[in-house]
Amino acid sequence: MVEVPVSLGSRSYRILVGAGSLAAVGPELRRLGPGRKVVVFTDDGVHERFGRTVLDSLGGAGFDTAVVLLPAGEAAKSLEVAREAWDRLLSAGCDRGSTALALGGGAVGDLTGFVAATYMRGMNLVQVPTTLLAQVDASSGGKTAIDHARAKNLIGAFHQPRLVVVDPCTLLTLPEREFRAGLAEVIKHGIVLDADYFGELEKVREDVLRRDLDVLERVVAGSCRLKASIVERDEQEAELRHVLNYGHTVGHALEAATRYERFVHGEAVALGIVAEARIAERLGLATRETTLRQVELLRDVGLPVHGLGAEPDAVAQAMTRDKKARDGRLPFVLAPSIGSFRLVYDVPGPVVLETLVELARTG
Amino acid sequence: MVEVPVSLGSRSYRILVGAGSLAAVGPELRRLGPGRKVVVFTDDGVHERFGRTVLDSLGGAGFDTAVVLLPAGEAAKSLEVAREAWDRLLSAGCDRGSTALALGGGAVGDLTGFVAATYMRGMNLVQVPTTLLAQVDASSGGKTAIDHARAKNLIGAFHQPRLVVVDPCTLLTLPEREFRAGLAEVIKHGIVLDADYFGELEKVREDVLRRDLDVLERVVAGSCRLKASIVERDEQEAELRHVLNYGHTVGHALEAATRYERFVHGEAVALGIVAEARIAERLGLATRETTLRQVELLRDVGLPVHGLGAEPDAVAQAMTRDKKARDGRLPFVLAPSIGSFRLVYDVPGPVVLETLVELARTG
Repeated sequence: MVEVPVSLGSRSYRILVGAGSLAAVGPELRRLGPGRKVVVFTDDGVHERFGRTVLDSLGGAGFDTAVVLLPAGEAAKSLEVAREAWDRLLSAGCDRGSTALALGGGAVGDLTGFVAATYMRGMNLVQVPTTLLAQVDASSGGKTAIDHARAKNLIGAFHQPRLVVVDPCTLLTLPEREFRAGLAEVIKHGIVLDADYFGELEKVREDVLRRDLDVLERVVAGSCRLKASIVERDEQEAELRHVLNYGHTVGHALEAATRYERFVHGEAVALGIVAEARIAERLGLATRETTLRQVELLRDVGLPVHGLGAEPDAVAQAMTRDKKARDGRLPFVLAPSIGSFRLVYDVPGPVVLETLVELARTG
Repeated sequence: MVEVPVSLGSRSYRILVGAGSLAAVGPELRRLGPGRKVVVFTDDGVHERFGRTVLDSLGGAGFDTAVVLLPAGEAAKSLEVAREAWDRLLSAGCDRGSTALALGGGAVGDLTGFVAATYMRGMNLVQVPTTLLAQVDASSGGKTAIDHARAKNLIGAFHQPRLVVVDPCTLLTLPEREFRAGLAEVIKHGIVLDADYFGELEKVREDVLRRDLDVLERVVAGSCRLKASIVERDEQEAELRHVLNYGHTVGHALEAATRYERFVHGEAVALGIVAEARIAERLGLATRETTLRQVELLRDVGLPVHGLGAEPDAVAQAMTRDKKARDGRLPFVLAPSIGSFRLVYDVPGPVVLETLVELARTG
């Protein structure tokens, strides 16, 4: 089992990465000395596959458990679901010392995190992510959110988990499209934060795609470590943490402009990475070679690297509603070379638009 | 103008206390360098009396302002109102650098704080409290909340304001009952935290009751300073901050048992203080003299000090749903002498019940 510490003073916690770690959730939580009650939030499919293991582990460690089944996918992230979740916590007699445990993908983690952040002004939260995306990104760092009818993730809070348990075995049953989408975040971490890690990904891409457990454990732990290093230095996204949004400024806008129907998140991020690599090139900040390495790795793992699926204007328009904007100014994360990044404010609008038009033409 | 600093690292802020300080809100906020947009949350009555002054001050300092009128009183603290508030912030084009300003009493501050805490995972918050209760208690410290159908303040978050502006002139038009209720929190601060401050209150009680502005400024600033000293040492109510709940363990239960109809908050707290003083006496932790000084000052400022208005059993039952409970154990704050406190877990149930029965008999 690999242990990745996240050092945040009194809010520090560990990310445990290891095949079979699901069965260790109970004893690991017990070590933290929380209250007796644990409410597990999950969805039908995940519960069927992994619920028993987690509940047995919790029960064996002496916890009283209850299960709340959420709608699958993004539908979990609504105010109505949050309201019902608060009801359930209250009915279960939960207090601030009780624990909400998210077992599932990013949406389950986001909803559970938001509910835990706001129940009695904050109860214990444990993340047990079962998708690649959630394992390398959503489950650590403390971002929680639900959706607003007009904007995804508009309502949320920062609330760090007390523990994150990542079992790569859960990836073995993940649908192919979802697995590949998660790789976009893995690749993103390499591009902006660690050239060696990126080089390693280039080498093991085949092993990753056939889901070799040892390789997955190493890759996932590496991604968690890179993310933790950023979260530790900028917990609440004051500035540095924007680096984790590489590919997301265009990616989020692309998702919004296609009404979240055409792409899963990782696919939009892959196209966002390609767009932002080309923006860096246009601005003279990066070479063609740097763009090509990114495009090649994304393409080799089966992610989209051309086409846009939306009008360039609509994508540019959606960018103006980005949560990172301040009085209309939007920071772009750009990668001058593999393993480095720079925050650039005021990328000229025409540069963004020309890049989007070019990307659309290759579709 | 008196400045009370609240030192919380990167979340530090100032509480400004001074007659006429409402007109300084704009320039004081400007010094913090936030975004251009400020949305003022208030209710009809407060807006009529103080809205113009605040909006002019903000406009004069170069801010774009909008006003959101909330239902008066506790009705503001609903999920429906929060939902509409998020909508309004989004429609106003607010981002994380924009500011939500609460102008009003505790309910306006709680709702606005919760909405600010959760809009895009946290936007700027300014508190401009216009009731005594909100000035000395609710506006600083970062507690925000809305109500759940089955429990007050169940849903909330910790979110510190960037600035608190307290203008004692707003107290001159406060209804008598509300003004006196606020004094319960003032007296509470003296009892558990500062014998000199309590002695001063005994001396100036008449000046306070006729709302002498100089005395009010000194008393309010003193209370803010005492509260800040606790919040600085225990921001998220891990343990020490429970001291601010003196009188509230019984007080909250009394409010719940009387369905929030019989007492305003400060009145329930006054009776709670009397009950908790007697519990300390029964446990041999405090003398009769210590109880009497508390009862006398509360009575002299017109707060209830006997009677219960509810069945003792019902009050004891309501205590079990306290947010401070951990796996059913509830910490009591007790005052061994004026100016000191002790956290006591496991006060025997019969001691609590006998005290409540005794208090009910004196009604």
